[in-house]
Amino acid sequence: MRIAQIAPLFEPVPPPLYGGTERIVSNLTEELVARGHEVTLFASGESRTTARLVPGRERSLRLDPAPLKSEIAAHLSMLDEVRQRADDFDILHFHLSHFQHFPFFEHIREKTVTTPHGRLDYVDLVGAYRRWPDFPMISISLRQRKPLPKANWVGNVYHGLPLDHYHVPPEPDRSGQPYLAFLGRLSRDKRPDRAVEIARRSGMQLRIAAKIGDGDRTYFHENIEPLIDGKQVVYLGEVGEEAKAKFLHEAAGLLFPIDWPEPFGLVVIEAMAFGTPVIAWNEGAMPEIVDEGVTGFVVESIDEAVERVGRLGGLDRARIRRTLEQRFSVPRMVDDYEAIYAAQVARLDGGLRAPLRAISGGPA
Amino acid sequence: MRIAQIAPLFEPVPPPLYGGTERIVSNLTEELVARGHEVTLFASGESRTTARLVPGRERSLRLDPAPLKSEIAAHLSMLDEVRQRADDFDILHFHLSHFQHFPFFEHIREKTVTTPHGRLDYVDLVGAYRRWPDFPMISISLRQRKPLPKANWVGNVYHGLPLDHYHVPPEPDRSGQPYLAFLGRLSRDKRPDRAVEIARRSGMQLRIAAKIGDGDRTYFHENIEPLIDGKQVVYLGEVGEEAKAKFLHEAAGLLFPIDWPEPFGLVVIEAMAFGTPVIAWNEGAMPEIVDEGVTGFVVESIDEAVERVGRLGGLDRARIRRTLEQRFSVPRMVDDYEAIYAAQVARLDGGLRAPLRAISGGPA
Repeated sequence: MRIAQIAPLFEPVPPPLYGGTERIVSNLTEELVARGHEVTLFASGESRTTARLVPGRERSLRLDPAPLKSEIAAHLSMLDEVRQRADDFDILHFHLSHFQHFPFFEHIREKTVTTPHGRLDYVDLVGAYRRWPDFPMISISLRQRKPLPKANWVGNVYHGLPLDHYHVPPEPDRSGQPYLAFLGRLSRDKRPDRAVEIARRSGMQLRIAAKIGDGDRTYFHENIEPLIDGKQVVYLGEVGEEAKAKFLHEAAGLLFPIDWPEPFGLVVIEAMAFGTPVIAWNEGAMPEIVDEGVTGFVVESIDEAVERVGRLGGLDRARIRRTLEQRFSVPRMVDDYEAIYAAQVARLDGGLRAPLRAISGGPA
Repeated sequence: MRIAQIAPLFEPVPPPLYGGTERIVSNLTEELVARGHEVTLFASGESRTTARLVPGRERSLRLDPAPLKSEIAAHLSMLDEVRQRADDFDILHFHLSHFQHFPFFEHIREKTVTTPHGRLDYVDLVGAYRRWPDFPMISISLRQRKPLPKANWVGNVYHGLPLDHYHVPPEPDRSGQPYLAFLGRLSRDKRPDRAVEIARRSGMQLRIAAKIGDGDRTYFHENIEPLIDGKQVVYLGEVGEEAKAKFLHEAAGLLFPIDWPEPFGLVVIEAMAFGTPVIAWNEGAMPEIVDEGVTGFVVESIDEAVERVGRLGGLDRARIRRTLEQRFSVPRMVDDYEAIYAAQVARLDGGLRAPLRAISGGPA
């Protein structure tokens, strides 16, 4: 199949550090190429891929040191380039969250699919989708669909990790002090304060490996820093890939006490790759991602969380890893996307094209 | 003429305080209505106008307290609405700086004009315009065109102020201590530090009436605050409309020692409305706006600026006001825009449509 993958221009594909969307686009693109598809990746120029790369911008917006950059204009140029080449593809897969591509592709919207990687409860997104109501959409969790229940959802595809990248040493070294892990941005939404309280009340050490974004600095200094004592609560700073693997692998469990509708939660499945269970708050996609009592626990209070800490040791870490392999691997993710692409193409080829509402006033 | 004015959704039209673009759109819209045109204003819902208002968003992006807003999706919705009604208008006048409307109107681009109100030297803007190279553009100064010299410039229209709003009391009260005025954001680009040095070296008091934006707080605390002594350098905070008028009116001169390519500089003509001359740096539109030796001076160094302070008293304040009335009034601005609209419409009606380059791949 001739497939276009269209990534945002914020980070390279894959991203050097942070950047969940661009990482998933990379996982998907590389596997599609490995399966023999003819794949073109539209992304920033520093991207590394075995697909054909069409740079949408020489450098990614985040890494470009130029003082004057326009997110809107950068994506306009890339989208125009995609449109000019649209005839070269059987399917166009967009990974843009704010629908900037809709006006470009309304005349061939049945040939597109869109995976929005972010939350959809922005008031403006709901209003905008109403104007392009039949663009085929793919969610990354069923919970993500909630603000747009009537959208043209053609599939739900959970993220997948490349298993060869996340290989597991047979038995982790847990001879040191047992600890709970907190990984991710130290923002209010992620509720590191809850993690600290859970650790304290269960008498476990908490180790925090996290980045402090510019927007989170004040929150960190005022709310979290005072809780770090270097004994029960330890702050490791931002960690690289290798240290992260060890950090997750040796942990008794991951705490994910989020307070926002996280549409997926990559960190949770990264922990699973090392057999590490999670205690997650009942928010966003967590009930879909966590197999209750198998890969971890979903809770709604500190009390519940503390109680579950005592039960982490009883979970089968090999089974957690196997669950990841079954539910959240790249091959499984790509199987799902391939099936959706095939269904969309078959619908077009077979003349079964669903009647699409005309878009009035526009160049239909 | 049936005219659509399309404003950005950041502020209401007119804006309550800050917001140059929305203020100019308001000045233009109200005068067009007064001249008998049939005007429709696409803008945020809190806008106040005698034109027909089509809300592009219930509340403006800046005033809406909702935590999750999308600038991109908000403008997508508004632009779709404009497109649906495009047949109702003879001309569509866009005031969007980052070209988000281009893909919507490429099939009727000869019926549009675009006034970008910001600087154009974003790398992405230059790249994007190249993809829609014949959209008719109107600059707000000739200097603004510099990054896009080959664009389809169909006019240059300097901003205008409503004269009845800026009426002048016969003779200002300058019985108090004479002072130089600094007005505007306290950002690095505006170089308040230069203003302080000019004031010190010329032995004049400097009064600063300015807002400190979130992004400028660190710059202010580290660089400007230590220079404020309450005697020679006085900080008044942000001032309302009435206080601003008095502040400008009673000043010996306005200092505008900018260090960026300001495409216009509304504050300079606001000072002129009160007969107050300006000492401006030779940047951006300043040489076009300032009539050397009549309404002020354009300088390139602190030495020059200090020398010119001594010559401010020799300028004729009544003549400065008259120059504003001739060059920067709303009626003059609207005359210019009307002439451009008429020329564009005549070109269409008379079959003199310039050959437009085809946009390949798009729904032309």
